[in-house]
Amino acid sequence: MPITLDQAQTIVRAALEHGTEQGFQPLTVAVLDPGGALVALARQDGSGYLRPDLATAKAWGILGMGMTNRALAARAEAAPDLYTTLVALSGGKVASVPGGVFVRDADGQLLGAVGISGDTSLNDEAAALAGIEAAGLVAETGAEA
Amino acid sequence: MPITLDQAQTIVRAALEHGTEQGFQPLTVAVLDPGGALVALARQDGSGYLRPDLATAKAWGILGMGMTNRALAARAEAAPDLYTTLVALSGGKVASVPGGVFVRDADGQLLGAVGISGDTSLNDEAAALAGIEAAGLVAETGAEA
Amino acid sequence: MPITLDQAQTIVRAALEHGTEQGFQPLTVAVLDPGGALVALARQDGSGYLRPDLATAKAWGILGMGMTNRALAARAEAAPDLYTTLVALSGGKVASVPGGVFVRDADGQLLGAVGISGDTSLNDEAAALAGIEAAGLVAETGAEA
Amino acid sequence: MPITLDQAQTIVRAALEHGTEQGFQPLTVAVLDPGGALVALARQDGSGYLRPDLATAKAWGILGMGMTNRALAARAEAAPDLYTTLVALSGGKVASVPGGVFVRDADGQLLGAVGISGDTSLNDEAAALAGIEAAGLVAETGAEA
Repeated sequence: MPITLDQAQTIVRAALEHGTEQGFQPLTVAVLDPGGALVALARQDGSGYLRPDLATAKAWGILGMGMTNRALAARAEAAPDLYTTLVALSGGKVASVPGGVFVRDADGQLLGAVGISGDTSLNDEAAALAGIEAAGLVAETGAEA
Repeated sequence: MPITLDQAQTIVRAALEHGTEQGFQPLTVAVLDPGGALVALARQDGSGYLRPDLATAKAWGILGMGMTNRALAARAEAAPDLYTTLVALSGGKVASVPGGVFVRDADGQLLGAVGISGDTSLNDEAAALAGIEAAGLVAETGAEA
Repeated sequence: MPITLDQAQTIVRAALEHGTEQGFQPLTVAVLDPGGALVALARQDGSGYLRPDLATAKAWGILGMGMTNRALAARAEAAPDLYTTLVALSGGKVASVPGGVFVRDADGQLLGAVGISGDTSLNDEAAALAGIEAAGLVAETGAEA
Repeated sequence: MPITLDQAQTIVRAALEHGTEQGFQPLTVAVLDPGGALVALARQDGSGYLRPDLATAKAWGILGMGMTNRALAARAEAAPDLYTTLVALSGGKVASVPGGVFVRDADGQLLGAVGISGDTSLNDEAAALAGIEAAGLVAETGAEA
């Protein structure tokens, strides 16, 4: 079952609130369903026009490969050529930096992914986590606990 | 001055409410700034995965040409080859059917455009008009009064 | 010998002056060398963001095929499928409507082409002719004398 | 408010004069509005046909990310994979080398960006600064004072 628009908009709202509270740079948030299609996107005033594509890519790539950003980064380090191929193959829709986060329900079922771009990668990811938590859903980043 | 995210989200919410109230098919709404970049997008549950691109295209094409859908349709009828060129040149981001609407402030200043896809073109457009009105902004469709 | 930047900028200036004097919609003018590369481009305030690509396409297509817009239009009418192929092949950089004009020197040597977009196709072409004449060069549109 | 064509042409003229006076290689200058669309472009005689795309990319990338070339270069050094993604995502329209400069008015409002290519990156940037100064506008390169 894909993420609903209501869940996605809750994530968007809470992620942007987190960024504003923390004094982050203006963010762009994208929420994608398991098929890689946009469900919701919001770009804060002052966030650059490339940010929607980058936020979307962060989520699209992890869904498409079924691997977290950190797993992608490990793979990219071990096999840089593979990463180059993945990026070219997807027209740039794969990113190994943090800021793309899987969204699951309480049973571990995949609902989609969130991608955020605008501040540092780790701040982008923190905003995604805040959004997913606000929606009562479960985030997976690949970071060790 | 581009449309703000707050204005864009008001448009999205009100347009989707209009669609739901009227019993329209599930809609996707895109709000673009005057430079053609996404500010907000929302896809209702059940709206197909091509809808985000189509909703975006409806708004992108009228902004890029500085012409309403109806003016584009008239030009396409007079010069079908030109329309073919425009569609290819933009990667399909030009659409002559209703559902892309300019958004202006009370002084006539261009703030961006709304594109909606999901139901019939005229219903898509009606939802856009409802959204723009709810934000206290001025819509331009090219339809005669 | 390709058109010089000085010649191209004279064409740009005079074409835009013509448009302003005649009360045309805001224009975008592109001047290309015989290899199809931009030498100069200018977009008047208010001319849409798709206009640079369209103005460029009008000149690029005639240079690439070695045929005027009108010859392209005749070919498109006789063989519509060919036109579709040309447009797709070039990513939309072929246009059969007026507004792309060859530029030659007094000896008939090809220097490049001018493409203009913003008003009706014939007005776009008239502006191109005014520009080319101001530079003391020879225009070729394919229109019968 | 985007940069006007008059301002853009002043920048083009003065940037090219600077290059000529300093004995730079032939330059190509692109001036973009805040949405990333071309306002003016000029390629000096002898400047290669890839230069228009490269000059445009230098300006397009900084506008799209809302970061100077130097900030992009720092990010690219810290996260090379991200830079690869950005370049692919944008079709090569992001460049971390100097020669793309933000243009602001006296109040700090963003009007657009200038991109120059043809000589060394720092000489390209110097020409952009000369152009922006001649237009009475404010340049931002990210270089430390």
